[in-house]
Amino acid sequence: MALIVKKFGGSSMATVQRIGLVADRVAQSTSQGDQVVVVVSAMQGETDRLLKLASQVCTMPRDREIDVLLATGEQVAIALLALALREKGIEARSFLGHQVKILTDNVHGSARIVTIDAAPVHECLQRGEVVVVAGFQGVDQDGNITTLGRGGSDLSAVAMAAAVGADACEIYSDVDGIYTTDPGIYSKARKIDKISCEEMLELASLGAKVLQARSVEFALKHKVAICCKSTFSEGSGSWVLPVISGLEGEAMAGLEGAVVTGVACDRNTARLSVLRIPNRPGTAAALFRPLAEDAINVDVIIQTAPQDGHCELSFTVPKASAERSVQLLLAHQERLGFAEVRVADNVAKVSIVGAGMRSQPGVALQAFEALGQAGIDIQLISTSEIKISVVVDDRLAEAAVRVLHDSFQLDRV
Amino acid sequence: MALIVKKFGGSSMATVQRIGLVADRVAQSTSQGDQVVVVVSAMQGETDRLLKLASQVCTMPRDREIDVLLATGEQVAIALLALALREKGIEARSFLGHQVKILTDNVHGSARIVTIDAAPVHECLQRGEVVVVAGFQGVDQDGNITTLGRGGSDLSAVAMAAAVGADACEIYSDVDGIYTTDPGIYSKARKIDKISCEEMLELASLGAKVLQARSVEFALKHKVAICCKSTFSEGSGSWVLPVISGLEGEAMAGLEGAVVTGVACDRNTARLSVLRIPNRPGTAAALFRPLAEDAINVDVIIQTAPQDGHCELSFTVPKASAERSVQLLLAHQERLGFAEVRVADNVAKVSIVGAGMRSQPGVALQAFEALGQAGIDIQLISTSEIKISVVVDDRLAEAAVRVLHDSFQLDRV
Repeated sequence: MALIVKKFGGSSMATVQRIGLVADRVAQSTSQGDQVVVVVSAMQGETDRLLKLASQVCTMPRDREIDVLLATGEQVAIALLALALREKGIEARSFLGHQVKILTDNVHGSARIVTIDAAPVHECLQRGEVVVVAGFQGVDQDGNITTLGRGGSDLSAVAMAAAVGADACEIYSDVDGIYTTDPGIYSKARKIDKISCEEMLELASLGAKVLQARSVEFALKHKVAICCKSTFSEGSGSWVLPVISGLEGEAMAGLEGAVVTGVACDRNTARLSVLRIPNRPGTAAALFRPLAEDAINVDVIIQTAPQDGHCELSFTVPKASAERSVQLLLAHQERLGFAEVRVADNVAKVSIVGAGMRSQPGVALQAFEALGQAGIDIQLISTSEIKISVVVDDRLAEAAVRVLHDSFQLDRV
Repeated sequence: MALIVKKFGGSSMATVQRIGLVADRVAQSTSQGDQVVVVVSAMQGETDRLLKLASQVCTMPRDREIDVLLATGEQVAIALLALALREKGIEARSFLGHQVKILTDNVHGSARIVTIDAAPVHECLQRGEVVVVAGFQGVDQDGNITTLGRGGSDLSAVAMAAAVGADACEIYSDVDGIYTTDPGIYSKARKIDKISCEEMLELASLGAKVLQARSVEFALKHKVAICCKSTFSEGSGSWVLPVISGLEGEAMAGLEGAVVTGVACDRNTARLSVLRIPNRPGTAAALFRPLAEDAINVDVIIQTAPQDGHCELSFTVPKASAERSVQLLLAHQERLGFAEVRVADNVAKVSIVGAGMRSQPGVALQAFEALGQAGIDIQLISTSEIKISVVVDDRLAEAAVRVLHDSFQLDRV
């Protein structure tokens, strides 16, 4: 008998028929004697419908009342799932964020979880009931409803798993696991059996959409084992594991022993180049401060060696922020003294991720050689301990993914 | 400066445009310096939409989870109205049933209000905020969401008015007040300025749809003055007043001095006649017990004087219960010993209501004479202190309403 937290997202809860399938999934588990806590998101499309209503009555500040509004989506979902479970003869009880209770800070729209009171959950489980918890929502210390931000139900599930001491946190979606790369880009993509949280974090922030990044951080910190599975098919899924004692060696080398675990591709990227910047101490900081103050996420920064007392800076920003970034830089052009800003939005960022890189030199070289032999020009490079990112022409991005996937033989275990 | 509770029903909240109109109504009041608590229902159609979803996943017991589901309707409504008010520069704060808090018993689907904690409401009002409260919902002592039954938002509003000590409880709908009879039946129907709670109770239970009966009972008991107004037009509305000291005399005679205050017509009625019942003590009780156990609402009961040791009983039931009533009676025919049951579902119940009847004999006679002169045959009669009901052929019901309206000169103040 295990204690399992199961999280079902909006696509799994899209219709009453699918809610019936989710109930079947839960029934499978309880019939094996498992204790089950289910965390659910709103039915697909519901959050957008509610936001549209709000946009029709106001200019939508991200405030308390928007959270009151959006929290109804998950409330409908838990009630329907609890009813569907009872219809199958499974005793079930729904819990809202304030009933569990999931205490958060008071930052409406992106609240952080402070504590979860596991006592009412354990009480229900001991009575043999399935506990159905509303994801995405919490309550602040004054009793106001808060929400955790988009994708927040993953975080609700992982935090719930930590609070109740679950054996595993299963995250169900319409894909059956985490792949070495997007199967839509390369048919040789292979489902990964085990990946470390650290690697998953790099993949999640690079555009892999299976798991919300904050939930993986939380799992890493609180040692929660996550398993990503499909609602609609059988299969063992992919485990996302924190580094736990006894696994240290494996984690250092990548959980499957490979040097590189996956290849990610982020096409939502633009490259900015700032030309002929006077090379003074503090120049880079002065340049990036206006962007940081506007909450623009700057990535892959390259500064050339100075020449004639001037240097050149290139970096990437999300495509949607490119125009705004140029405006902000030009507004400070006089003070900063640079000659020109150029934008290229026909670029993509391709990254290889692997915990094994730490202990294995020469990974970067192998990647650059593979891309070079395939005639793919590298515009920018950025590396971390377990990741190497290159910025390439957007039209060559998919080819770059395939070349790297082949070079590191990711189709083989 | 007054403290006003304003309740807006589903038709007033049907669209985002109408929610804007409701916000305008509230703004009118605050600009005059009033403190305002708003109680709202779900947007029109929302409760039915949610019930339909539930019916697709389960055979719908009236349980805890249905209340969790339905409570979202009002939650969406309070959030949207609070946002619309803030958009107009009016500080507003929404409250759910558990936040106010509206403590109820634990009878899901038709909970009764036990107490309301007025402290958080007064705190908000003192900060100059408009308080927006979700109607229809409450919370039991274990923190479970409960609902008050259909039309329960009227009760929420009246109970809130009592709890905060409001000067008045304004109930807004798409009609501008309470009429001497349905204007759709008789164009001479006149809007009533003042009516007592007792009279309103008789009218509400007789098919006038402006106010939920339980809310009027609550207003009578807790001395809340209700004013029924239109969301969509100006006008002073109709006051529904508890009998308060200083008004005793007026109340005895009807608040407007008239003997009869209104005429109601209930076409949702069927007449049952049970023929040749052996006349033994306890016969009537034995006959009605099976109906009562099936929660069938029996009204207007007439028993004939015994003849040959037998009598005849006629009574009315709601049309939808007629067939079931016959089945139940026939199931006990042997034991009860009656000869036959006959049903007539082409009947209607027409009633005149007026607190002034108490002190004025001859009202019944005047009513019967007026109907007789108009050639309208009376099938059954039932009277109470402030009400006279007659059962007539359904095709003559509207004529009966007009005849009685004319006879008691209800078109004049």
